[in-house]
Amino acid sequence: MRHSLYEADHEDFRQSVRAWLEKEVAPFHDDWERAGIVPRELWTAAGAQGLLGIGVAERHGGGGVRDFRWSCVLSEELVRIGASGVGFGLHNDVVGPYLQDLATEEQQERWLPGFCTGELITAIAMTEPGAGSDLQGIATTARRDGGHWVLNGSKTFITNGINADLVVVVARTDPEAPGSRGLSLLVVERGMAGFTRGRNLDKVGLKAQDTAELFFDDVRVPAANLLGTEGHGFAHLMQNLPQERLHIAVSAVAAAETVLALTVEYVTTRTAFGRPIGSFQNSRFVLAELQTEVTIARTFVDECVRQLDSGDLTATDAAMAKWWTTELQNKVADRCLQLHGGYGYMSEYRVSKAWRDARVQSIYGGTNEIMKEIVGRSMGL
Amino acid sequence: MRHSLYEADHEDFRQSVRAWLEKEVAPFHDDWERAGIVPRELWTAAGAQGLLGIGVAERHGGGGVRDFRWSCVLSEELVRIGASGVGFGLHNDVVGPYLQDLATEEQQERWLPGFCTGELITAIAMTEPGAGSDLQGIATTARRDGGHWVLNGSKTFITNGINADLVVVVARTDPEAPGSRGLSLLVVERGMAGFTRGRNLDKVGLKAQDTAELFFDDVRVPAANLLGTEGHGFAHLMQNLPQERLHIAVSAVAAAETVLALTVEYVTTRTAFGRPIGSFQNSRFVLAELQTEVTIARTFVDECVRQLDSGDLTATDAAMAKWWTTELQNKVADRCLQLHGGYGYMSEYRVSKAWRDARVQSIYGGTNEIMKEIVGRSMGL
Amino acid sequence: MRHSLYEADHEDFRQSVRAWLEKEVAPFHDDWERAGIVPRELWTAAGAQGLLGIGVAERHGGGGVRDFRWSCVLSEELVRIGASGVGFGLHNDVVGPYLQDLATEEQQERWLPGFCTGELITAIAMTEPGAGSDLQGIATTARRDGGHWVLNGSKTFITNGINADLVVVVARTDPEAPGSRGLSLLVVERGMAGFTRGRNLDKVGLKAQDTAELFFDDVRVPAANLLGTEGHGFAHLMQNLPQERLHIAVSAVAAAETVLALTVEYVTTRTAFGRPIGSFQNSRFVLAELQTEVTIARTFVDECVRQLDSGDLTATDAAMAKWWTTELQNKVADRCLQLHGGYGYMSEYRVSKAWRDARVQSIYGGTNEIMKEIVGRSMGL
Amino acid sequence: MRHSLYEADHEDFRQSVRAWLEKEVAPFHDDWERAGIVPRELWTAAGAQGLLGIGVAERHGGGGVRDFRWSCVLSEELVRIGASGVGFGLHNDVVGPYLQDLATEEQQERWLPGFCTGELITAIAMTEPGAGSDLQGIATTARRDGGHWVLNGSKTFITNGINADLVVVVARTDPEAPGSRGLSLLVVERGMAGFTRGRNLDKVGLKAQDTAELFFDDVRVPAANLLGTEGHGFAHLMQNLPQERLHIAVSAVAAAETVLALTVEYVTTRTAFGRPIGSFQNSRFVLAELQTEVTIARTFVDECVRQLDSGDLTATDAAMAKWWTTELQNKVADRCLQLHGGYGYMSEYRVSKAWRDARVQSIYGGTNEIMKEIVGRSMGL
Ligand SMILES: Cc1cc2nc3c(=O)[nH]c(=O)nc-3n(C[C@H](O)[C@H](O)[C@H](O)COP(=O)(O)OP(=O)(O)OC[C@H]3O[C@@H](n4cnc5c(N)ncnc54)[C@H](O)[C@@H]3O)c2cc1C
Ligand SMILES: Cc1cc2nc3c(=O)[nH]c(=O)nc-3n(C[C@H](O)[C@H](O)[C@H](O)COP(=O)(O)OP(=O)(O)OC[C@H]3O[C@@H](n4cnc5c(N)ncnc54)[C@H](O)[C@@H]3O)c2cc1C
Ligand SMILES: Cc1cc2nc3c(=O)[nH]c(=O)nc-3n(C[C@H](O)[C@H](O)[C@H](O)COP(=O)(O)OP(=O)(O)OC[C@H]3O[C@@H](n4cnc5c(N)ncnc54)[C@H](O)[C@@H]3O)c2cc1C
Ligand SMILES: Cc1cc2nc3c(=O)[nH]c(=O)nc-3n(C[C@H](O)[C@H](O)[C@H](O)COP(=O)(O)OP(=O)(O)OC[C@H]3O[C@@H](n4cnc5c(N)ncnc54)[C@H](O)[C@@H]3O)c2cc1C
Repeated sequence: MRHSLYEADHEDFRQSVRAWLEKEVAPFHDDWERAGIVPRELWTAAGAQGLLGIGVAERHGGGGVRDFRWSCVLSEELVRIGASGVGFGLHNDVVGPYLQDLATEEQQERWLPGFCTGELITAIAMTEPGAGSDLQGIATTARRDGGHWVLNGSKTFITNGINADLVVVVARTDPEAPGSRGLSLLVVERGMAGFTRGRNLDKVGLKAQDTAELFFDDVRVPAANLLGTEGHGFAHLMQNLPQERLHIAVSAVAAAETVLALTVEYVTTRTAFGRPIGSFQNSRFVLAELQTEVTIARTFVDECVRQLDSGDLTATDAAMAKWWTTELQNKVADRCLQLHGGYGYMSEYRVSKAWRDARVQSIYGGTNEIMKEIVGRSMGL
Repeated sequence: MRHSLYEADHEDFRQSVRAWLEKEVAPFHDDWERAGIVPRELWTAAGAQGLLGIGVAERHGGGGVRDFRWSCVLSEELVRIGASGVGFGLHNDVVGPYLQDLATEEQQERWLPGFCTGELITAIAMTEPGAGSDLQGIATTARRDGGHWVLNGSKTFITNGINADLVVVVARTDPEAPGSRGLSLLVVERGMAGFTRGRNLDKVGLKAQDTAELFFDDVRVPAANLLGTEGHGFAHLMQNLPQERLHIAVSAVAAAETVLALTVEYVTTRTAFGRPIGSFQNSRFVLAELQTEVTIARTFVDECVRQLDSGDLTATDAAMAKWWTTELQNKVADRCLQLHGGYGYMSEYRVSKAWRDARVQSIYGGTNEIMKEIVGRSMGL
Repeated sequence: MRHSLYEADHEDFRQSVRAWLEKEVAPFHDDWERAGIVPRELWTAAGAQGLLGIGVAERHGGGGVRDFRWSCVLSEELVRIGASGVGFGLHNDVVGPYLQDLATEEQQERWLPGFCTGELITAIAMTEPGAGSDLQGIATTARRDGGHWVLNGSKTFITNGINADLVVVVARTDPEAPGSRGLSLLVVERGMAGFTRGRNLDKVGLKAQDTAELFFDDVRVPAANLLGTEGHGFAHLMQNLPQERLHIAVSAVAAAETVLALTVEYVTTRTAFGRPIGSFQNSRFVLAELQTEVTIARTFVDECVRQLDSGDLTATDAAMAKWWTTELQNKVADRCLQLHGGYGYMSEYRVSKAWRDARVQSIYGGTNEIMKEIVGRSMGL
Repeated sequence: MRHSLYEADHEDFRQSVRAWLEKEVAPFHDDWERAGIVPRELWTAAGAQGLLGIGVAERHGGGGVRDFRWSCVLSEELVRIGASGVGFGLHNDVVGPYLQDLATEEQQERWLPGFCTGELITAIAMTEPGAGSDLQGIATTARRDGGHWVLNGSKTFITNGINADLVVVVARTDPEAPGSRGLSLLVVERGMAGFTRGRNLDKVGLKAQDTAELFFDDVRVPAANLLGTEGHGFAHLMQNLPQERLHIAVSAVAAAETVLALTVEYVTTRTAFGRPIGSFQNSRFVLAELQTEVTIARTFVDECVRQLDSGDLTATDAAMAKWWTTELQNKVADRCLQLHGGYGYMSEYRVSKAWRDARVQSIYGGTNEIMKEIVGRSMGL
């Protein structure tokens, strides 16, 4: 299937990203997996390379183009080399839009330049130990005290949690307002008194990605760090979640393509019973089924990207893309691991890492069950 | 998901087709199901309405536009009212291209006007009792005898088999040539001596569609009825099968959309335990999953249609579209039937007919297993 | 896998049943499918053959053995020849226990002899147009009036609905009692004034089985026709549903075995590409998977039958057996139909009938969704 | 479902095993996972506890009972605490039978006492870098030289590969014999010159289990270490593989039960949207489906154990049990991980380890694809 999402410029950018990643990331990622984190220097190097803040205005040091395809290229290239620990996507595509769209000019001046140079690494903290799928259950509170908000509570599973310098924290600023009302976004900065981090969580995969708990103990956040409108936190999240989900879907498709390609190569070289194992009809059918679904997924996600860029992508579309592609990614990784036989179970084989990395995709960004709720609701059910 | 395949003209055409079908087809289709065939008059009425030969040149009485989207509109509208017995699609989209692309000017003049008025109903006969998936096993022979081919053999499962006036028959004209070589296409016409038809086969679904066995006993077919190049029959088939398969995929998606829509309506009105059955989370998830996959299928098939029209659609793409959408159609029909409870098993409920009609789609036009072979082969496996 | 449920006696019985069915049923079942019903004479012939009331006490003309395996043999043999229209199972295994366990001695004397001779064909009527899964929604009422109950309401989807002479009707005798309380069982007899039947419903399969709507318009049912304890109708149903569900599971496994066996035969004789189609690895794997699951299902259902006979079978076990085996039966029929290629879609091929007949099994006797509710509840969820 | 495989004695044994494991294994297994191996002391402690060589004759220090149920109890209890690194099962149930059934009395005297005390840890080495599924491709050779066999080649993926003192090696002793002919079993002992081990392989799961490559470089194996009949190696393997596969199936069912139980507990305590997450119908249905299949699997595997003990278990039965239960184990682990939300992806949660440990089960002991080949062949396909 001929795909036509990208233009020549994007493909040029892909080449330069690929070259940079081959040099700066690929040789070190295994070490970072062992370390459980990527070094801060990678971020500033990426900033220098123009990989951070592609969509941020030029006056703040960004790329100045709001075209989601550049982000997609970057995500895809990271995925292709298995660089699952490098949290640029969260920074650019998930946190970025909050800062670009909700921050005041003053805030933008404070934060965006560092965002683009890689000196300010970002994170977003919604989930709490007791509130994941159900954001209405958020218990972190921020009480107004003069020119500050006094923040108390804890967050968990926060991507870039150790490295982050700026954390967009969802907190309850109006304790009276029921459910999702009364939430606001506060930007907590590294070094604020009372803001501590838990350990870097040990995960099944995404080994090089720092994921952590964050604790807020009477953290005094200046009122000037309120992001967006007080009490509109939930609406702000709803506004940005489609892009976060599409970002996940884009990486899911790229991951599926990657593992499928390397498996096709594996099964054409590995032999058993005197034949390439890819020549057994079962292998052929399994791979043909996966190839079909990956092709279909690519077509759909490409269309979603177009519609995101044209402002047409609905929350329902994003939910569809998120659950379906991540389920597919997991299926592809699983079937491909099986086709590797015993080698598939060895950590040194890329397919085994792909399988472990894939598993979280159907969980974060809103679980796939929550995605089905969203789709179901859109059908009037 | 916003879909953008059709333009305003196509939508206008859709309205007129819909109106015509509501008047000429919908009220009678049940009778035709009982009769096992649609009346010839329907064909001439459709011809008069401009529904036959949309892609045929105007000088031969056709619509003069080779844009597959018109055919899609017609297929979709037929599907939407469950008019599974009306074989216009086979005529227009499957047989049509053979006549348009391979027929000599003389042949076009002889056949295309009747093709467009509906006076000449067409069929294509590849399958034999002993050769379905494997066209290389075709045993029907045509021996050259002066200005004629002497045709012997039999064909089975031929759509429009009873009504057809012109049958494109695949026959072996070179008995020496191995496998797929040596096949040619001959147009057999109603009334030729030695050409007889078996009974109208009793099928699980598509009850109003006449499907029959055809017998050729020393039928003398004039040499002028050879279609395309002698010995190139297999290549001609390969050329046209992608469009046939995409035609099936288009109808599969339309059928899935239709049954899904009527089921959503059913589950929002039917209650159990004091609630609409669509409000049970299981129903909601099942329907959300189907809605997602149908949306994805639609996006993919739309893209295939675009690529067919631009000449880019590959045999692999068509094979992917065919197996995946027909499997989906079956899944949708099955799950939707279940959601109807006992009513789903009653013939008077549309979902039960949709379920029966769907089942053949993964079989004809090349079974889904053969489609996977094609995809697998394209991957070098 | 060696199975050991049956003893020599059961196998002898199987032989005689098989011989009888070959003679009395197999040659005529196609006609009955067209007629939509089996003749009453079949019932009396079966009675004479000792096939009805196997578990009924000898003093009432029955077989006098409460060993569910005899019923299983009969069900299996009916299934093996595709005699899906013959409602002995419902009579023996579903309605029988109500009469045997709940009827007073006087009632038993009135009804059981005819039950065993086949002169009194039975049915059970729970479902109503507005209440299927949710029996608490039953709206049929019986108001006490002296020595009678005055019955009003309607039932639908009643198996043996046209032929039945005795119908166990679930009615609300206490309009005040909430939900499932206040239901009782009344035996309505052919000929009672105000008791009429709707048309024989046209179904997707089970074509020879009469399924009908029943209407009760001020039917005066004698108090002596109350079955079991007034107000305990729901408890009585709960008591008997496990056996009904196991009966369905037994037939599901037999059906799956049958269609699998005939398909194995088909694929070893049908050839394509110069080889039996069963020799393609995909066919082999599909059939090996089905064979495995059918073997596993047989082992499980055998164990359930043993536990039913020993009084250990729980409602949960029966629910598990019911949903899993009927889903399997449908899967087997579907995959086997596909392996028949175009022939699988022809009514004259047994696999197509098996596919149509299978579909209802996941719906009646409590839908598979309701079965999962039961299992889930047993897990404390 | 009431299960009846075990008798009171087995249950008593279970209690003592459980107590021992709680004390000797559970507190240390995490350390062993980090170490990649279990200490040899565990083996001798197990020997002292009577856990090794249960089926070995008493005169050689064993338990003297060939009743596979004792092994099952041990396997189940290991699985229940997640002690996936403890290779007693391979020792007892996979290697044991070779020594018991094929060793000469002299060999038994040499090896079985140490086998039972845990001083001689065993392994079996079939797989080679170039030959896994296809044992006919074995390239390791043993050339006869006087009273010795001179062994050359390498093996990979060998369980207990680092700890093993005795390795049953499959080697080609007759280079002329084609395919599976000409293979023999040789027992290679720790310390033999030319026998070296590669590194302990880094795997996705089974982290505490030492899996290694073995190298044989002109190892002189005394002729007295030939196990069984020269040239009958393949037949010997075929004889023992069913028990190996059933052993895997037993552990698969126990693992599935374990993860299911802990997930049921999790979902009844974790809340979202103000309700236990297990109360959402989707959770309930998923868990009910898994509970059903695990129950069915248990019933089937129990029956296989009975038939193994009575000598009736066929290679086909074992193949069915192996593929179906391991696929189920993986499905259960996957669905249960999902139900844990983000916590399921954290290494400290048992479900994540269960998921990683499960994955290999469909690969070793003969891949599930090979199992389907075996079943298919038994059907004459
Ligand atoms: C590696 C990783 C990185 C992450 N990064 C971030 C981050 O950067 N920032 C951040 O804020 N969060 C992050 N998360 C958290 C993530 O978004 C949550 O884990 C996720 O939303 C699920 O919440 P939970 O873990 O509390 O699961 P729960 O909400 O407890 O859900 C448990 C299970 O119940 C199901 N469930 C819940 N509600 C329903 C329902 N109504 N119907 C049916 N099923 C239901 C869920 O689908 C799930 O299967 C991350 C998580 C991981 C694992
Ligand atoms: C309603 C209906 C209408 C039809 N209309 C027409 C028509 O108009 N014109 C026409 O020419 N034909 C028509 N057909 C025929 C149809 O195209 C064939 O039925 C189909 O191609 C399959 O061929 P077969 O039935 O001979 O199945 P077979 O070729 O016998 O196949 C049997 C099974 O084996 C499988 N199989 C075969 N080869 C392989 C392989 N290499 N690997 C794995 N599996 C394999 C198949 O997938 C199938 O499951 C129609 C059929 C039906 C049912
Ligand atoms: C051929 C045939 C023979 C029959 N014979 C008899 C008979 O002899 N006697 C008799 O009394 N009945 C009989 N029945 C009726 C049968 O038992 C009911 O059809 C069945 O119980 C389902 O009820 P319903 O049709 O009203 O479906 P509904 O209850 O309307 O259910 C519709 C859908 O909603 C789903 N649903 C309902 N509740 C829930 C829930 N809580 N959670 C999730 N999903 C839910 C169902 O699973 C189903 O998919 C027969 C039916 C058929 C088709
Ligand atoms: C943790 C672990 C422990 C192990 N322990 C031992 C041990 O103690 N001793 C030992 O001898 N071995 C052991 N093994 C090896 C194991 O038995 C093999 O890995 C397994 O048999 C598969 O062989 P392979 O890895 O060479 O895969 P391959 O044979 O290369 O297979 C690759 C893929 O091709 C498929 N395939 C192969 N042939 C066919 C066919 N005809 N049709 C369709 N598909 C086919 C396979 O199913 C698989 O998906 C272990 C492996 C692991 C991972």
